[in-house]
Amino acid sequence: MTKSAIIKPDPKLDLVLERVIDVPRELVWRAWTTPELLRPWFCPKPWETVDCEIDLRPGGIFRTIMRSPEGQEFPNTGCYLEVTPNERLIWTDAMLPGYRPAPEAFFTAVLALEPTAAGGTRYVATAIHRDEAGRKKHEEMGFHGGWGMVVDQLVDYIKKEM
Amino acid sequence: MTKSAIIKPDPKLDLVLERVIDVPRELVWRAWTTPELLRPWFCPKPWETVDCEIDLRPGGIFRTIMRSPEGQEFPNTGCYLEVTPNERLIWTDAMLPGYRPAPEAFFTAVLALEPTAAGGTRYVATAIHRDEAGRKKHEEMGFHGGWGMVVDQLVDYIKKEM
Repeated sequence: MTKSAIIKPDPKLDLVLERVIDVPRELVWRAWTTPELLRPWFCPKPWETVDCEIDLRPGGIFRTIMRSPEGQEFPNTGCYLEVTPNERLIWTDAMLPGYRPAPEAFFTAVLALEPTAAGGTRYVATAIHRDEAGRKKHEEMGFHGGWGMVVDQLVDYIKKEM
Repeated sequence: MTKSAIIKPDPKLDLVLERVIDVPRELVWRAWTTPELLRPWFCPKPWETVDCEIDLRPGGIFRTIMRSPEGQEFPNTGCYLEVTPNERLIWTDAMLPGYRPAPEAFFTAVLALEPTAAGGTRYVATAIHRDEAGRKKHEEMGFHGGWGMVVDQLVDYIKKEM
């Protein structure tokens, strides 16, 4: 493999959540890439993540099923594009496992992790959309609140359980 | 980067062209990844490739413009997914550079090169489609004849010019 992809978010099309959290990035990485460590915090409560499948390599599956408080299930299947341990994880719903183009595409997600001097993590999550309509829809679905709540849940989980 | 993607063509959805050619794979790789070495052979004559842009890294642009004998131009922009020098090149039109989901997706292409005992190359090109309709459309567009003719043009070009 050669150089990594250059990711340049476009404010018209993309959404970025940046946080500094007081847990080490190695634990954040493990929680994002291990099904049983991901399920407890991955969607904003009272929603639940009831299933998760991970094949941690470019082209490998990333599949989750979220369940609403009313019991409705929302499956999501995509694949990883870049897996750089403890640094950067990129996946998309525009492609199914094995790089097969998906029937519908909503966004590509980039999770970038950097260590802070204090032993914590600079956590940057970027959602890359096809167009402005995609960005607006994601904003209306509550990107900032939802992804922000998920970071809080992730940090709580790491401190209590890992 | 971790392990490479597992590519498993599905005969219902995908198309595969396999050839053994008598040129070394290092030259095939260079011809596929260098714009000025790609343009002369990349589309079946009398069509021409009038422009080509390559940023050879995962997420980097692969853009071509083909021109029909009548002068109509057909631009195509996608991005690379895997770049393993002399071995495997994967790109898709399902994503634009920087992994942005594309407005339309047709296929992902996998070019796999292996050296033969005689110093030639086992050349396998696989087109991975979203669905059966995509595979049929590509077949009707002349996948086997077209991609086959392109291999002949590539081999001629390498022997005469490289």
